[in-house]
Amino acid sequence: MMRTRPLKVALLGCGVVGSEVARIMTTHADDLAQRIGAPLELAGVAVRRPSKVRDGIDPSLVTTDATALVKRGDIDVVVEVIGGIEPARSLITTAFEHGASVVSANKALLAQDGAALHAVAEEHGRDLYYEAAVAGAIPLIRPLRESLAGDKVNRVLGIVNGTTNFILDKMDSTGAGYQEALDEATALGYAEADPTADVEGFDAAAKAAILAGIAFHTRVRLDDVYREGMAEVTSADFASAKNMGCTIKLLAICERAQDGGSVTARVHPAMIPLSHPLASVRGAYNAVFVESDAAGQLMFYGPGAGGSPTASAVLGDLVAVCRNRLNGTTGPGESAYAALTVSPMGDVVTRYHISLDVADKPGVLAQVATVFAEHGVSIDTVRQHGRQDGDGEASLVVVTHRASDASLTGTVEALRKLDTVRGVASIMRVEGE
Amino acid sequence: MMRTRPLKVALLGCGVVGSEVARIMTTHADDLAQRIGAPLELAGVAVRRPSKVRDGIDPSLVTTDATALVKRGDIDVVVEVIGGIEPARSLITTAFEHGASVVSANKALLAQDGAALHAVAEEHGRDLYYEAAVAGAIPLIRPLRESLAGDKVNRVLGIVNGTTNFILDKMDSTGAGYQEALDEATALGYAEADPTADVEGFDAAAKAAILAGIAFHTRVRLDDVYREGMAEVTSADFASAKNMGCTIKLLAICERAQDGGSVTARVHPAMIPLSHPLASVRGAYNAVFVESDAAGQLMFYGPGAGGSPTASAVLGDLVAVCRNRLNGTTGPGESAYAALTVSPMGDVVTRYHISLDVADKPGVLAQVATVFAEHGVSIDTVRQHGRQDGDGEASLVVVTHRASDASLTGTVEALRKLDTVRGVASIMRVEGE
Ligand SMILES: NC(=O)c1ccc[n+]([C@@H]2O[C@H](COP(=O)([O-])OP(=O)(O)OC[C@H]3O[C@@H](n4cnc5c(N)ncnc54)[C@H](OP(=O)(O)O)[C@@H]3O)[C@@H](O)[C@H]2O)c1
Ligand SMILES: NC(=O)c1ccc[n+]([C@@H]2O[C@H](COP(=O)([O-])OP(=O)(O)OC[C@H]3O[C@@H](n4cnc5c(N)ncnc54)[C@H](OP(=O)(O)O)[C@@H]3O)[C@@H](O)[C@H]2O)c1
Repeated sequence: MMRTRPLKVALLGCGVVGSEVARIMTTHADDLAQRIGAPLELAGVAVRRPSKVRDGIDPSLVTTDATALVKRGDIDVVVEVIGGIEPARSLITTAFEHGASVVSANKALLAQDGAALHAVAEEHGRDLYYEAAVAGAIPLIRPLRESLAGDKVNRVLGIVNGTTNFILDKMDSTGAGYQEALDEATALGYAEADPTADVEGFDAAAKAAILAGIAFHTRVRLDDVYREGMAEVTSADFASAKNMGCTIKLLAICERAQDGGSVTARVHPAMIPLSHPLASVRGAYNAVFVESDAAGQLMFYGPGAGGSPTASAVLGDLVAVCRNRLNGTTGPGESAYAALTVSPMGDVVTRYHISLDVADKPGVLAQVATVFAEHGVSIDTVRQHGRQDGDGEASLVVVTHRASDASLTGTVEALRKLDTVRGVASIMRVEGE
Repeated sequence: MMRTRPLKVALLGCGVVGSEVARIMTTHADDLAQRIGAPLELAGVAVRRPSKVRDGIDPSLVTTDATALVKRGDIDVVVEVIGGIEPARSLITTAFEHGASVVSANKALLAQDGAALHAVAEEHGRDLYYEAAVAGAIPLIRPLRESLAGDKVNRVLGIVNGTTNFILDKMDSTGAGYQEALDEATALGYAEADPTADVEGFDAAAKAAILAGIAFHTRVRLDDVYREGMAEVTSADFASAKNMGCTIKLLAICERAQDGGSVTARVHPAMIPLSHPLASVRGAYNAVFVESDAAGQLMFYGPGAGGSPTASAVLGDLVAVCRNRLNGTTGPGESAYAALTVSPMGDVVTRYHISLDVADKPGVLAQVATVFAEHGVSIDTVRQHGRQDGDGEASLVVVTHRASDASLTGTVEALRKLDTVRGVASIMRVEGE
């Protein structure tokens, strides 16, 4: 049964993602109407630069007054693809207050203010959907929130930032240094002019906060996510990784502690074995592993960004929200009942790969090994190389068994105090084993 | 807000899957209640052998009268994990008639009678969910039906049967023959005593019918799915595949024709390049690629069977159906509005790898090439080997460009009529390029 009165959609933002949303709404109008049960009508498009020519957008719909658009009162769904905190946050809030449901792709906002926005949505009996905010086109929010609703998720581990994966993949496959790989990513449009949000891990941290919140039914704030960028990763690290049969990826990892009572969320570069499926995720692709009690290990893979993939996710949410609207219902809202403790990084338990520059003399290994033992960090393997330049230095590569981040930090501090340790060349976590 | 009156669940079947569903309902009762908004109550368990001891199941709930259970009238959700066509079909129909919604893992039934069951569900305003029917724990039905609801799916290509993947993986990695690999699969519990449904591709064909129906918003009957089993795959085929940088997988492939107006669905063994992500799907795992206009290429990977993974999918559906029930609504039902033509196998366009036994004399290659040309099948590569045994025979391996299955069939018929062609040793499709 098709309703003839259309559902009205206000589009906030018409850039990379928004223009694709508008395009698909037009080209796939018939299909969308069939799948929703009513046609969609693009009721207004808010932008910053009204005079910019926008293919396929009726100029009379374009406005710079986004607030007036969301206040109209006849809007069924607001699609927010402006990005950033303000004015997006106020616009979404106002949209709920005026009876609209909201679809957003805004990871920064959701990670920072998701709980508050969900509360406003609930207060007004409206939906807030944001599949596109994490890993672009890859269905992840819906599988976590709905498909796995009867299961207990223990871990989410993934590559959720395409820019950094492109850079690391380049470094790995061509031996390029970080800056060279970044320059290529910028030239090809994979990195923005200011790549900070990507390379420093802010973008991935926002996604980790969102994923952890949903996976563990617990509020996880952006500040709860430990974050280390990838700008320090060197060609030497890749060489060490290769020696171990590993590569290096920037990972977002959300974990339930063994005892089940607390969770952690973190973003950092890590070595993973080449045999791990995440190791072969190339270029700007994203992939996320989800481990749960009953389902075991699931993986979701696909394009993590780009106008059209992201628009696919936005449109999927738009169809769902519209169906809910026609049914007079709402989908699952925020689920934070478990309210688990979010533990600090020190509590994370994993393995470590540590490269030390040491004096090339007898007894050094024994000294170093003693420091590890004193901090309760058990060593898996050690490799020791004399330097060819005969400067009296050697390098020592230690790979540990699983230990807490706090123990490892203590170990490294103590190592730095040893006379025979000239420097700690690199510390990298080893994951995915 | 938690409702205190529980939702009543009737479990039909308490075998591999059903016993895990019951177990999780008990062990995760609190979480499930929080996520649904009301507690669940196991109201009855229908089985064949009432006296069998069932861990954790209150014996007073066990009945052999499944019909009476679904007719009780106070059941909110019926979980059907008996399998097979009857009595499952009648029980599900009766359940709808008595006001229950249904969650099923029954691919055979859904592929055969999905449309009719959906109609009964809709008539009574109830839900019919069946995520577990395809690829076990892997979320696939929900992503196709909901996440990609705003997109246009063009292709679904995947490994959807764990038993056959286990066998093919064994043959590939150990050089074992089909029977030997099947025996091992049986010994390890990956294959049933009667492996027909798996090795002949019936199980995969049922899943292909379900996936094609959802992906293309078109009814696809089991009879519409072309099906070829894997019992004919030989070690020699694996050797040929290796020569081409390929391996062999039993694939389910649902495709929209280039012109968009029709679709095909098929199951058969095929060569795929080792570089394709499906090539590295090991053991009994499943993985499915979905290609759509806007999202591009997505992959979903995980355990395709087993009691606990399948139960995870059943429980996810159970939570969704219960939420719908509490909201007085239903989820998306059957969507078959597109009503595309389901074309026969002859219309499928792909590449082929053909091994011929031919007379070892001049002019044979020219003759063979002429036959291909006459049928409009363009040849990509040919390899010719004289036989060591000097019996006057040679073998000719032809790999074609893309051509319709009908043209290829015509070509092979004509080849068989050539005096110089002693036999067609094997024909295998080449996919995933
Ligand atoms: N791009 C991706 O691949 C991707 C992937 C996943 C998620 N996302 C998320 O999607 C959102 C949009 O990203 P994008 O790449 O499409 O951004 P974008 O290309 O920069 O587009 C932003 C749009 O918002 C409009 N805008 C900016 N400030 C505004 C204001 N104050 N009032 C009204 N309109 C305003 C801009 O108007 P003008 O056109 O006039 O400049 C532009 O149309 C962000 O939250 C981003 O994180 C993007
Ligand atoms: N096993 C998997 O890995 C898997 C994966 C995906 C989907 N599925 C699907 O899940 C369904 C169940 O599979 P399963 O492996 O759990 O099967 P199963 O182990 O054979 O269990 C079947 C259950 O149904 C009961 N049953 C049989 N006939 C009955 C009848 N007439 N009335 C009442 N109960 C009856 C049996 O009772 P008794 O216990 O008394 O024998 C048994 O408890 C099938 O549709 C299957 O295709 C299974």
